[in-house]
Amino acid sequence: VTLSGDGAPGLRSALVTVGEELLLGRTVDTNAAWVSGRLADLGAPVIRRFTVGDEDTAIAEALRRALDCAEIVVTSGGLGPTSDDRTREAVAGSLGRRLLLDRELLARLEERFRHRGYDELPPANRSQAEVPEGSTALPNPVGTAPGLVLTQEGRMVILLPGVPRELQALFHAVEDRIRDAFGPRLRPVRIRTLHTTGIPESVLAPRVEKAMEGVSDIEVAFLPDLEGVDVRFTARDRDEDTAEAALDAAEERLAPVLGEYRVPGSGDVAREVVEVLTRRGWTLGLGESCTGGLVARRITDVPGASTVLLGGVVAYANPAKVRYLGVPEEVLAERGAVSAEVARAMASGAARAFEADCGVGITGVAGPGGGTPDKPVGTVHVAASVGGRVQTEAWRFSGDREAVRIRSAQAALTLLLRMIQEAE
Amino acid sequence: VTLSGDGAPGLRSALVTVGEELLLGRTVDTNAAWVSGRLADLGAPVIRRFTVGDEDTAIAEALRRALDCAEIVVTSGGLGPTSDDRTREAVAGSLGRRLLLDRELLARLEERFRHRGYDELPPANRSQAEVPEGSTALPNPVGTAPGLVLTQEGRMVILLPGVPRELQALFHAVEDRIRDAFGPRLRPVRIRTLHTTGIPESVLAPRVEKAMEGVSDIEVAFLPDLEGVDVRFTARDRDEDTAEAALDAAEERLAPVLGEYRVPGSGDVAREVVEVLTRRGWTLGLGESCTGGLVARRITDVPGASTVLLGGVVAYANPAKVRYLGVPEEVLAERGAVSAEVARAMASGAARAFEADCGVGITGVAGPGGGTPDKPVGTVHVAASVGGRVQTEAWRFSGDREAVRIRSAQAALTLLLRMIQEAE
Repeated sequence: VTLSGDGAPGLRSALVTVGEELLLGRTVDTNAAWVSGRLADLGAPVIRRFTVGDEDTAIAEALRRALDCAEIVVTSGGLGPTSDDRTREAVAGSLGRRLLLDRELLARLEERFRHRGYDELPPANRSQAEVPEGSTALPNPVGTAPGLVLTQEGRMVILLPGVPRELQALFHAVEDRIRDAFGPRLRPVRIRTLHTTGIPESVLAPRVEKAMEGVSDIEVAFLPDLEGVDVRFTARDRDEDTAEAALDAAEERLAPVLGEYRVPGSGDVAREVVEVLTRRGWTLGLGESCTGGLVARRITDVPGASTVLLGGVVAYANPAKVRYLGVPEEVLAERGAVSAEVARAMASGAARAFEADCGVGITGVAGPGGGTPDKPVGTVHVAASVGGRVQTEAWRFSGDREAVRIRSAQAALTLLLRMIQEAE
Repeated sequence: VTLSGDGAPGLRSALVTVGEELLLGRTVDTNAAWVSGRLADLGAPVIRRFTVGDEDTAIAEALRRALDCAEIVVTSGGLGPTSDDRTREAVAGSLGRRLLLDRELLARLEERFRHRGYDELPPANRSQAEVPEGSTALPNPVGTAPGLVLTQEGRMVILLPGVPRELQALFHAVEDRIRDAFGPRLRPVRIRTLHTTGIPESVLAPRVEKAMEGVSDIEVAFLPDLEGVDVRFTARDRDEDTAEAALDAAEERLAPVLGEYRVPGSGDVAREVVEVLTRRGWTLGLGESCTGGLVARRITDVPGASTVLLGGVVAYANPAKVRYLGVPEEVLAERGAVSAEVARAMASGAARAFEADCGVGITGVAGPGGGTPDKPVGTVHVAASVGGRVQTEAWRFSGDREAVRIRSAQAALTLLLRMIQEAE
């Protein structure tokens, strides 16, 4: 157990998510991430999560394990009105409590159904007013299942419904309860994420680790995906000022190490492109082949993109490259569609076609077919044109069709961003 | 414990997902759902899941609990090259095994880095060749972290990397191992999903429930998302023939209820469009405004799309609509950019511009800005042109920017698919 700054043990939470659909893998457990994030921000981070089906013994067992390691246990799911909703009974059984009818809750449920035009409460819903002895109900503003709060030997057990919008609607009340009970012991987890692109994790990590040698008040983690590697700093069990100072110091140490690989701000290169273009009043046109509109999609994912993106052409076939982007037919014939020259012509052509200040061109072999010994799957040429100046980059990406396309879009956007920043 | 048909105990799996980012709630645990789904399909459904941080004792404890309740334990995460990757060591420790250097694995890693242009293996990656004694490595085709398989007292422990693409790429090999070891005891959970689009869950569900009255050998669930509502049938612990017969009967009962809302085949409307266009030898051009290339993205997500998709224009600004799609300026002036007439002109214009048999046009207000009392956020006009015949649809979608765009693309593709099917 980590001790917090003032010598009191850090407060810890555990989570039990309940539902057969989770175990079947047909539903992604977004509640687990959502609740975990809120509890970390609140200062009671989750240290264990358990997922079980709609079965009393499994729920009861998970609750016991959770109480063994944490002072706050949150469950989600199994509070509905049907026979496969087992959480109330399982928790009551596990804590040695009876299920009692909560008359106030029953009145609230009856009122809710009257309001919806029912003469009486459907019998199934009556079970939702039966709660473990000693629990307090948290009203559910968007559904029938109330949240329930119990205390057990100084620990707090919180039962929440599994429907994400109901769980989320109840969570403010949960936070109030936790603050009331544990206030002085809460220590929000502070997280700062630095984003990089264009450098592999195994090359980046040792450089970061070297720079961070001797720093013990910050945890460092690496989170790779197809668009780059994020470096995440975490400060725990500290007061806010100390934590922020430690994060600032860590970020400063890393600045020279990350260098040109760092993606500023949000870490989303497309967002950065839109922001810097907006600031300068510049515009953009896109010419995409193998990425099939992915760059357009990423740019238009950013609200406000319409002021900078004048248009884009998905030019899959060669005639479209010629007609809409003005790629010379002889360049296509001599160099092939997948070539630096064609990428260059597509970038300038996209800028020209939409009368934009900047253009992007991408051509490559995303696979699974279309590879040759000379130009295997993963061969991609990206180009950016900024104020008439054009640069190209040749890449050989690994991975399947989707990976190649995601990496290609990211490479093109990164090249464009760097050129815009240099262009000043 | 459920017994499978032949009296042998059903095979059960447990899952341990590892990663501080999961507990911090910064990453949604999609691996858990993905692996759970595959194991259910294979016939070794998951009965417990555990999530822990990057910490040896927590990983070891979860592994022990998992082995207590399941014959197959899968872990994900913590196999990377950096110091916060703890799974190899924790598992070795928990099972009382040493970590040994796997020379074959080392050679494969060295080869991989040579291929990417590195003179030697980064030292951090060398740790990835150190594996618990007695484990077999499963080659990773898309990354550096191999999967590892161990057996322990008749149980199987499978360690997989946490990067979803890598975990998924390795899973075929995992399935082979499980089949080899447990073949006759596998009882696939049979799931059949019928896809619908264009009908709300609250209208669909009562109709389905009425049609399914008296059916007890099939579980029915509703899974709504932004593209439509899936109806899921589940048959468990039955032999394949009985299960398939029950699923067939259920599907037949529902056919008249789903009617025109049913999406055939894969349930992916874009894939169906590409397939039917390919069969007919027809081609497609796209004109998108508020969807910003999302339809192009969905179409080009389908391998083989290049033979049908001649091109697409993302025409955000009005001049682009005029110049590239031939939308008449007076229509834009009179009706406004967000109008049925402009959608119609964009669809015909896209077909004409790319000399394609079919065209799609989409214009709308995706938000968050841009709404007016007349045309609030969510107002979208979609149009499809098939062999010169054009139809439009007006929608008012709820939800945020992303929701509106996803629903718009789906509506346009659905309209196009229906028109192609009607066109003979």
